[in-house]
Amino acid sequence: MSNRFGEIYTLTSFGESHGPAIGGVVDGMPAGVPVDLDALQRMLDRRRPGQSAVSTPRREADRVEVLSGVYKGVTLGTPIGFIIRNTNQHSADYSEIERCYRPSHADYTYSVKYGVRDPRGGGRASARETAARVVAGALAMQVLDRLGITVRAYTMQIGSVALEPDYKSLDLSLGSIDSNVVRCPDAAVARAMVAEIGRARADGDSLGGIVGCVVSGAPAGLGDPVFGKLHARLASAMMSINAVKGFDYGLGFGFADRRGSEVNDRFVPDGHGGLRTATNNSGGIQGGISNGEDICMRIAFKPVPTLMRDVQTVDTSGQPVVLHASGRHDPCVIPRAVPVVEAMAAMVVLDSYLINKTARL
Amino acid sequence: MSNRFGEIYTLTSFGESHGPAIGGVVDGMPAGVPVDLDALQRMLDRRRPGQSAVSTPRREADRVEVLSGVYKGVTLGTPIGFIIRNTNQHSADYSEIERCYRPSHADYTYSVKYGVRDPRGGGRASARETAARVVAGALAMQVLDRLGITVRAYTMQIGSVALEPDYKSLDLSLGSIDSNVVRCPDAAVARAMVAEIGRARADGDSLGGIVGCVVSGAPAGLGDPVFGKLHARLASAMMSINAVKGFDYGLGFGFADRRGSEVNDRFVPDGHGGLRTATNNSGGIQGGISNGEDICMRIAFKPVPTLMRDVQTVDTSGQPVVLHASGRHDPCVIPRAVPVVEAMAAMVVLDSYLINKTARL
Amino acid sequence: MSNRFGEIYTLTSFGESHGPAIGGVVDGMPAGVPVDLDALQRMLDRRRPGQSAVSTPRREADRVEVLSGVYKGVTLGTPIGFIIRNTNQHSADYSEIERCYRPSHADYTYSVKYGVRDPRGGGRASARETAARVVAGALAMQVLDRLGITVRAYTMQIGSVALEPDYKSLDLSLGSIDSNVVRCPDAAVARAMVAEIGRARADGDSLGGIVGCVVSGAPAGLGDPVFGKLHARLASAMMSINAVKGFDYGLGFGFADRRGSEVNDRFVPDGHGGLRTATNNSGGIQGGISNGEDICMRIAFKPVPTLMRDVQTVDTSGQPVVLHASGRHDPCVIPRAVPVVEAMAAMVVLDSYLINKTARL
Amino acid sequence: MSNRFGEIYTLTSFGESHGPAIGGVVDGMPAGVPVDLDALQRMLDRRRPGQSAVSTPRREADRVEVLSGVYKGVTLGTPIGFIIRNTNQHSADYSEIERCYRPSHADYTYSVKYGVRDPRGGGRASARETAARVVAGALAMQVLDRLGITVRAYTMQIGSVALEPDYKSLDLSLGSIDSNVVRCPDAAVARAMVAEIGRARADGDSLGGIVGCVVSGAPAGLGDPVFGKLHARLASAMMSINAVKGFDYGLGFGFADRRGSEVNDRFVPDGHGGLRTATNNSGGIQGGISNGEDICMRIAFKPVPTLMRDVQTVDTSGQPVVLHASGRHDPCVIPRAVPVVEAMAAMVVLDSYLINKTARL
Repeated sequence: MSNRFGEIYTLTSFGESHGPAIGGVVDGMPAGVPVDLDALQRMLDRRRPGQSAVSTPRREADRVEVLSGVYKGVTLGTPIGFIIRNTNQHSADYSEIERCYRPSHADYTYSVKYGVRDPRGGGRASARETAARVVAGALAMQVLDRLGITVRAYTMQIGSVALEPDYKSLDLSLGSIDSNVVRCPDAAVARAMVAEIGRARADGDSLGGIVGCVVSGAPAGLGDPVFGKLHARLASAMMSINAVKGFDYGLGFGFADRRGSEVNDRFVPDGHGGLRTATNNSGGIQGGISNGEDICMRIAFKPVPTLMRDVQTVDTSGQPVVLHASGRHDPCVIPRAVPVVEAMAAMVVLDSYLINKTARL
Repeated sequence: MSNRFGEIYTLTSFGESHGPAIGGVVDGMPAGVPVDLDALQRMLDRRRPGQSAVSTPRREADRVEVLSGVYKGVTLGTPIGFIIRNTNQHSADYSEIERCYRPSHADYTYSVKYGVRDPRGGGRASARETAARVVAGALAMQVLDRLGITVRAYTMQIGSVALEPDYKSLDLSLGSIDSNVVRCPDAAVARAMVAEIGRARADGDSLGGIVGCVVSGAPAGLGDPVFGKLHARLASAMMSINAVKGFDYGLGFGFADRRGSEVNDRFVPDGHGGLRTATNNSGGIQGGISNGEDICMRIAFKPVPTLMRDVQTVDTSGQPVVLHASGRHDPCVIPRAVPVVEAMAAMVVLDSYLINKTARL
Repeated sequence: MSNRFGEIYTLTSFGESHGPAIGGVVDGMPAGVPVDLDALQRMLDRRRPGQSAVSTPRREADRVEVLSGVYKGVTLGTPIGFIIRNTNQHSADYSEIERCYRPSHADYTYSVKYGVRDPRGGGRASARETAARVVAGALAMQVLDRLGITVRAYTMQIGSVALEPDYKSLDLSLGSIDSNVVRCPDAAVARAMVAEIGRARADGDSLGGIVGCVVSGAPAGLGDPVFGKLHARLASAMMSINAVKGFDYGLGFGFADRRGSEVNDRFVPDGHGGLRTATNNSGGIQGGISNGEDICMRIAFKPVPTLMRDVQTVDTSGQPVVLHASGRHDPCVIPRAVPVVEAMAAMVVLDSYLINKTARL
Repeated sequence: MSNRFGEIYTLTSFGESHGPAIGGVVDGMPAGVPVDLDALQRMLDRRRPGQSAVSTPRREADRVEVLSGVYKGVTLGTPIGFIIRNTNQHSADYSEIERCYRPSHADYTYSVKYGVRDPRGGGRASARETAARVVAGALAMQVLDRLGITVRAYTMQIGSVALEPDYKSLDLSLGSIDSNVVRCPDAAVARAMVAEIGRARADGDSLGGIVGCVVSGAPAGLGDPVFGKLHARLASAMMSINAVKGFDYGLGFGFADRRGSEVNDRFVPDGHGGLRTATNNSGGIQGGISNGEDICMRIAFKPVPTLMRDVQTVDTSGQPVVLHASGRHDPCVIPRAVPVVEAMAAMVVLDSYLINKTARL
């Protein structure tokens, strides 16, 4: 069951990095929604390796093939199966991994858990799996579009280079975010990030970072007590992305040293007969339920463990070995993680939207 | 479905703060495990209000009554139903809430979502609900005990007063943690925290903070690819606790500005023919699966929104009102949240342990 | 997870026959629905033993206590927890069962599966558990009422005495069904059934039978491809009731020796601009989805295995023993099973109704 | 969620009859199990149309392509994705269906539910979907084989021609069952069935029937109280197969007119220090849990609604039309349904086996 995500709008994903294909099944897509398969491919292209100087030079075609659930450009309400062929695998590159456990990778834990593992490119533990999420998320985003809900992720921090935390002054349009290779909506900061990545690459090293995500236009009422709180679903979604180590929303960890009187969000009339809050420290969610304000969150990534230098580790019998890193690896996954974060947020929001339709008769 | 937590070991909870009772059903408890119902009550007593000068003076009996699933002190493998009567409610205290939306509370979002709400003591949104979690978690802990797994939460930070992040030098025994009213395992820091709370109370204000949690003795192999990563389950668990706004594990957000070469966890022989890691930046989880090291995490709480001073807000028709806070409220929930964090971690670990039994034939 | 039923409208039940209480949690009840707790109790009274000469003389109070989820007579959208105290248990009656396995009971299988069992009154395997279903079903029926959907079960067959299969000529009002102790809506057949039960009781024997159930007023569109077919959900619901051994709907097993040309349901105008079918051999469901016609099904029960005579069996070490039946047992459970069947059908229909709200945007 | 089946061992299926492909994802397959992909294809071939004179002359290649989860012939514990291309569709054959509702098909109910439908070959409602089940079931059977558990389905009845109900005297080997085109393990009865089908075909008519299924070698302990009873899971599984209208197990509907004293299954020593039952009216399940005896059940199918003659029906605006049946259709699906029934039973038994591993610590 662990390869399924969601309650009503669900993705079941499959595939190893270097098997014949990866793919997934989206079950729970509402019927009658026009979908644009070209736009779907374009979202997937944003995650693709080999896009720029800062990402791995691998050039995978990553063509998504939709196999069901759509007829004459409209969703049928039936499951949408899709596959993405793995066309560029070079199993020879990975032969060494079969005999050793790479530090801070999943080699060891998969071996202990299952007794077997596919060593080629990380197998199921590879971030290649996230391509299936981007497909399911891009489909969700097309539905959210029709509901006036926008989901936008962007790079907040790479290594020591960080944006100011407040996103209000940023241009979070897709054009703005994708205007540079690091997907940071501030051109000057983006240049500093590119330089930071360049330095890490020169050292054969890698960098962590933080992705921000903002959902705007979501109606009040999404999310459910008690265990289905909207931010609990978002946290689960984000923490399931490879290399993610932390999640917060609104002021998040910044709440810890604050007093209630400083951070409570006062209600004010919204000018249309309703309410909104004067500030949004709550991050758009109160009591686990969206309140109509922007839903904003941060997702922290560790540096990718693969380094382009010799690494001391052990083989599967526990003997010390030196790994001669090879292959093609991003020194920093943050720019390519941006569409994955977006996808996961979109799935959670759509799922919560559909669940909310059952809250009243 | 949103009031159920877990896959195999599950809690379904129910109850409003000021209804007749709260309670829950634990389904999936393995059969044949001796359980100590007195120890269960003692764990619940740790969450109870009115324990100390730093928490609310309410004195609720909070007696758990186990109704099923245990026969002659041994689990039957059938569901364990339990209730905790609400004996100390004073509905009169809460009449004002019916007519207005308190800032940063769930009053508004519940009203928008459901069209109705129980205004007494926060209803379902009250943290009183977490008592059911403590019961289910304490049961899980009794099982984990037999497996040599220990779960321990403690106060890391209250307002501006914080422990050093490294827990290795701390005495995380229950006796140590519970030796002071703030549940901080460092006596000097604890005293500073008590003083911090005193200052906030004097101002009618409230404080946020951070709870740490360490799971030791867990075998390698717990957690599942892809969406069932152990830390994704833990994040979902912790984020579902009232007032939680952030979660990370291992170095967490601290990874963001680090390089891979600094933070990768090198494998070393464990001296018994197996492996362990020289450092534990990964927080005991690699690729979503436990690696046998301590599983350590941080959970950030916002200050409770209820202040013991007049608060500007709006009534349900949007008109400005001043709320004259009354009743009895903790200025800081961190000490009482410690057993709740422990309970959620215990449920996740036991659930993952049981799921893992199905990973191989 | 096995003690939970449903997807959106769910019941999680708990309780052993002779423990302190049985009960359950209904999660997924829509908010804002007025509920009548007295009517709830009346539905529960229909299942109660000791109602008539044909059922066991035990007189259990069976008072349901609703603990949450309802405020001022209206559902809150939060879980409805409830308990029913076990007030009439006589554990002494059941001491013999601890030492032996009764034929065609669950004593042996529970022992093998769990290693432990509660021998008092069958423990969790007792049909007493179905009281929780009646509560959850009665709540569902109150919601269905508002939607114009009626669920009605009745006794079709007891032993060798059976109604004609076509229900169209029967008066399926509650008053008609409950006008006799066997719940058969044909007075003459009912009298023959009473006589049949009397003969079995005189012999210390027991009888099987068939319960029919008709859902009328359900809109077209309930049920989901592929595994969530409406009749698959109904089958699962009914087969989970104690002593049920068979389920069919529409012509059911009667289809086996028929030709398509005889049994296809021809479409005809319904006189209001829509369609209906000239016949209803399909039982109101086509392709797993309701078509607006009556949903009709049959549920076959085995005779209760407890006989009021000496029975040859084995003790837990495999040695032959003679069981001297005692206690108070129905020779035929069919009349008391009628409200249980109704309850399960109501839960399935409401659940499917709520799920269907997510089929389109 | 409705396109997923199972709890631990799960199939999520997708695909319309005439889209690019059908397929599925098996999640929860235990790691380290050798699988034979050729044997998988052979099981799938048994379901294929065009195998014999009694089934449709369509010749679909139906080649299953396994895309993940298996490495060097051994399961990885990761999801097994697979697809089967739809190679033989002739959309032109089905153009008429777009404009009308065929009697006793799913055309009308899908249209009402979703507002859209794929008319080509029945779309998602086509029995072609069951090919995905056969793949998932054949994988399950390979696991069960290693556990000494055998699942065997066979044709019990076609139209008016039926086997004797007791299967004990039959040869239920695969060779025996597949020795004739109707999959009836009695050669004389099989010949009568072939003749019955021939008569129906000559009339352009279709036939219902009954499939039997026997699971042998299953250990005691499979199945869970209360809603997860083994036979409730089996019923749900079987009722979800296209055209199934009834399910029973053991004596099933035959219990209705029997007395307890006639049908109770007496325990006797099994000669190896354990117990078995002298008779098996219970069908191998007591209290919802397997008791170690054969698990035997019956599944009733309606005649396929498509007739090879002109059929009176209505178009989508309710006007009468005559459908000129064309294309290629089985007059009786029973022989091809046999491997589907087997597959569903195998999935349920393996799933229950895996769940049972969590019943004790």
